[in-house]
Amino acid sequence: MSQHVVIIGGVALGPKAACRLKRVQPDARVTMIDSQKIISYGGCGIPYLVSGDVSDPDQLRTTNFHALRDEAFFRQAKGVDVLSETTVLKIDRARKKVLVQEKGQKPREIGYDKLVLATGSRPRPLPIPGTDLPGCLAVGSMEDALTIREMVTTGKVSRAVIVGAGFIGLEMAEALTDMWGIETSVIEVADQVLPGVVSRTLASMAQKHLADNDVSLHLAEMVTAIEGEGKVERVITTKRTLEADLVILAAGVLPNAELARDAGLSVSSSTGAILVNKTMQTSDPDIYSGGDCVAIENLITGKPAMFPLGSMANRQGRVIGTNLAGGRATFPGAVGSLSIKLFDAGIAGTGLTLKRAQAEGFDAISAQVIQFDHAHFYPEKTLITLELVVEKGTRRVLGIQGMSKNLEGVAGRINAVAAILKYKPTIEDISNLELAYSPPFAAAMDVLNVVANVADNILAGRNTPITPDEFARMWAGRKDDNFIVLDCRDRDNAIKFLEKHPDFWMNITGETIQEHVDELPKDKKIVLMCNTGARSYEAQVKLTKAGLNDTVNLQGGWGNLRQWGLDPTTED
Amino acid sequence: MSQHVVIIGGVALGPKAACRLKRVQPDARVTMIDSQKIISYGGCGIPYLVSGDVSDPDQLRTTNFHALRDEAFFRQAKGVDVLSETTVLKIDRARKKVLVQEKGQKPREIGYDKLVLATGSRPRPLPIPGTDLPGCLAVGSMEDALTIREMVTTGKVSRAVIVGAGFIGLEMAEALTDMWGIETSVIEVADQVLPGVVSRTLASMAQKHLADNDVSLHLAEMVTAIEGEGKVERVITTKRTLEADLVILAAGVLPNAELARDAGLSVSSSTGAILVNKTMQTSDPDIYSGGDCVAIENLITGKPAMFPLGSMANRQGRVIGTNLAGGRATFPGAVGSLSIKLFDAGIAGTGLTLKRAQAEGFDAISAQVIQFDHAHFYPEKTLITLELVVEKGTRRVLGIQGMSKNLEGVAGRINAVAAILKYKPTIEDISNLELAYSPPFAAAMDVLNVVANVADNILAGRNTPITPDEFARMWAGRKDDNFIVLDCRDRDNAIKFLEKHPDFWMNITGETIQEHVDELPKDKKIVLMCNTGARSYEAQVKLTKAGLNDTVNLQGGWGNLRQWGLDPTTED
Repeated sequence: MSQHVVIIGGVALGPKAACRLKRVQPDARVTMIDSQKIISYGGCGIPYLVSGDVSDPDQLRTTNFHALRDEAFFRQAKGVDVLSETTVLKIDRARKKVLVQEKGQKPREIGYDKLVLATGSRPRPLPIPGTDLPGCLAVGSMEDALTIREMVTTGKVSRAVIVGAGFIGLEMAEALTDMWGIETSVIEVADQVLPGVVSRTLASMAQKHLADNDVSLHLAEMVTAIEGEGKVERVITTKRTLEADLVILAAGVLPNAELARDAGLSVSSSTGAILVNKTMQTSDPDIYSGGDCVAIENLITGKPAMFPLGSMANRQGRVIGTNLAGGRATFPGAVGSLSIKLFDAGIAGTGLTLKRAQAEGFDAISAQVIQFDHAHFYPEKTLITLELVVEKGTRRVLGIQGMSKNLEGVAGRINAVAAILKYKPTIEDISNLELAYSPPFAAAMDVLNVVANVADNILAGRNTPITPDEFARMWAGRKDDNFIVLDCRDRDNAIKFLEKHPDFWMNITGETIQEHVDELPKDKKIVLMCNTGARSYEAQVKLTKAGLNDTVNLQGGWGNLRQWGLDPTTED
Repeated sequence: MSQHVVIIGGVALGPKAACRLKRVQPDARVTMIDSQKIISYGGCGIPYLVSGDVSDPDQLRTTNFHALRDEAFFRQAKGVDVLSETTVLKIDRARKKVLVQEKGQKPREIGYDKLVLATGSRPRPLPIPGTDLPGCLAVGSMEDALTIREMVTTGKVSRAVIVGAGFIGLEMAEALTDMWGIETSVIEVADQVLPGVVSRTLASMAQKHLADNDVSLHLAEMVTAIEGEGKVERVITTKRTLEADLVILAAGVLPNAELARDAGLSVSSSTGAILVNKTMQTSDPDIYSGGDCVAIENLITGKPAMFPLGSMANRQGRVIGTNLAGGRATFPGAVGSLSIKLFDAGIAGTGLTLKRAQAEGFDAISAQVIQFDHAHFYPEKTLITLELVVEKGTRRVLGIQGMSKNLEGVAGRINAVAAILKYKPTIEDISNLELAYSPPFAAAMDVLNVVANVADNILAGRNTPITPDEFARMWAGRKDDNFIVLDCRDRDNAIKFLEKHPDFWMNITGETIQEHVDELPKDKKIVLMCNTGARSYEAQVKLTKAGLNDTVNLQGGWGNLRQWGLDPTTED
């Protein structure tokens, strides 16, 4: 007799596992259970539904060929039975039964041969008063999304506050500001946006870009209460009160792992997520799990971690479907690739940030560069900023993050590194990485190769760098510090800076610096800078040869500094 | 005393090696010798110089900060001595001297401690009469490029013939047609464009795109003579005579390895290219070489091969520079990544094509798909066609090629595979490949994951495919063949096809096919198709379950077929 597979959860991983199973083993009997009415939707599309980029909610629920993925579709086209608006109360592993309760019905038991837990995640609740007020919503379900969309499209929102500057928070900020002109503030407890995702330097660039696009940011600030009479009216933080018609909670997610835990399955001690092996089996070999509710191996740290992304759910769902049908597919872990569009810019990353790497015990450094995406002589070109994180002794590459207005271009470079991170590549593997080259696609020495070369030079001690953050701190305290900026660019580029800050700025081109060593102050630190960091690096090498060792090189030069948000020509 | 390094060749690898050496070992004495006056230019920019995209020839010779990389620049900024318009006549390895002849001077000897051969390549000469006529040019030097540009910009060319449909040939075809409106024909001896670079299917798509953009292609045709009175007037091929004011020879390149061979260095028996080890050393440990004149290991086949690309020259140049300075950098080989812009479309590839893989002895198959680059609900999206080449038994991935109007998008997917090819990935590594996901960047199950999943299904026997080429052959012979096309799309999509070809076309949607099995002919092969190949694949699984095994599935469906150039609705 054919096996009966019960799948708890019908959003992303559940449907994928069900359909894959039915294709590999058409005789299998599959029952998919979900507590909601709406199933099988692209939750990651919610910000675009709110913005109006996605005009019809059903677009998140249709196939490529516009069929609505509802219960009837699964039954008829896929041969999968669906019980929607049905809650699973308990898993009885010994008897291989789940206790379910359909809406308005009495609980009943359903037997299974194999069980799949596709229970996903829920927004992390905030332990503050007022989160139950109307107008305070998370982005955890289609119902939430439709409520927000309704409020926004009917003009009920002129001011919104978003709690959390992670992916969802910033995507929602763009949706509200860009498409609806809503005065939007984002509150983030960390001292930067996208904490854990990008470095301070890249975060500063993102913050400037958000500010340029009318999003108000309040960093290093905590929400203490949400207040209002019968609906949201204001948000109280540790530093201010913000009026608001809409509050969106986007402070991360928690795994829906209670059913699993109560059934005695192994869960992560840190996150509570369900633990699975490489075949996506839980500690009970007849129960599989994947997606937002599980922890899998972070292939950089070797520790279990959550990767709550629709892409993970889809790929793991296919693995589970194959294995339910008797195959032996694996999903060995993840490196943590991420991307976000912020207005007309893109940010992407994979692996660890420098800060995260250091917290994990790696003796790590990072290299930051800026360069055009295409051959420098090719007329269409856009700057890409990259930051590569490497371990000192082993020269192992631990992660890379980047930002550019060429969204596909920056993601493409990140993805090339994401692909090899699990093989523990070294700097040299990135230096030599063979991007498909021709002038409209890449530079002969592409920005990705260059960031590895810079890391190499830093580790060799030839390039002694400072980040834009460090430069900004030095610059702010320049009256009490003892340094001079040596601008290695042509005079045309340097002149405005020289005129504005004659006491702190001098100009000698990188190519002629060896002839002007005597003109340099011997008692001051020399901060070298150019447009990208490359010309000033050559200058640093020449100064070192001339015996001047107290020099630092501004990584990414004026190109990164400008995007970071510091312009010495406009401040006294 | 500091060492003296002599570098023969000053275009790409030579200058890179020289500058890197000087940065790592500033005391080194470096002499760079080139037979031409113009050195250190981006040869890969020549088609864009001819088209006018690059307006000033000096743009190919300037740094990012607009300094012209001439002899004076190398001497002053880089500390590298340059002997231009100087020919190297001989290498005396025993005495470590090279015999050089400067323009108008008598030969003289220069001693070296280390020598670098950066002699590059030259256009392959054609063994036919008339190639020495004025107006018959290759794209082998800046001098050639400037002559072509001069002819084109002064209106001397109304008809051009290009010999060779490889990268340079097609880039030149675009340059002449798109920017100058010149009637351009391309002659190619193989039966497809980009032979060895993409499959017949992708080549057919490129051919249709070239034809749509007014480039005339003559495939499987050989040039036998170039004729004219005092200048080029016509090209004679095995099939026709074409009038021409300009003939461009682009039939590949040969390594400039004669100096090395005459000095007794090891060269490849097949190509004549200089053999080097992973540190870019020739068979003489004091002589390094890299770039267009060497053979390095093809990491897929394990055999020595030429990779004549500016990107290779730059990266290998850096490795040589490091090693000249006493380091031990390596360049372990290449997988063969390539890209080309054809008007508004991009083609990219890495590793082996199916045909090449089979010729190398691999028992290989390929999977072809078409899918949007972004989440299917995201409003901005572009189709990407991919073809993945895999070995049957080992499931090893051998190569991937693609085409799309999202140039960065297709290159990004190819580059992710290029990055891991050297680790001998399997299908599963691509199925699980962790592209940075969010809806504006990728699909949750990205086209790159999908092409691996399709390959998996083909090898499992669940998906029995045919390519657009095979479909076109069947379709052309349909009157004598015994098949029917079963269109698995909605009736709206199928109706035009049904009406035009009622005897050969039927329509049942993939979702309902299991209810209509009795309506299908039992004595005919069933060719399943849909818009992408996914819906028809599900239909194939269902028909197999129903006992109908004589079915094939059109890979990439109507999406790829249309781009291939076959439209059944417009032909009888």
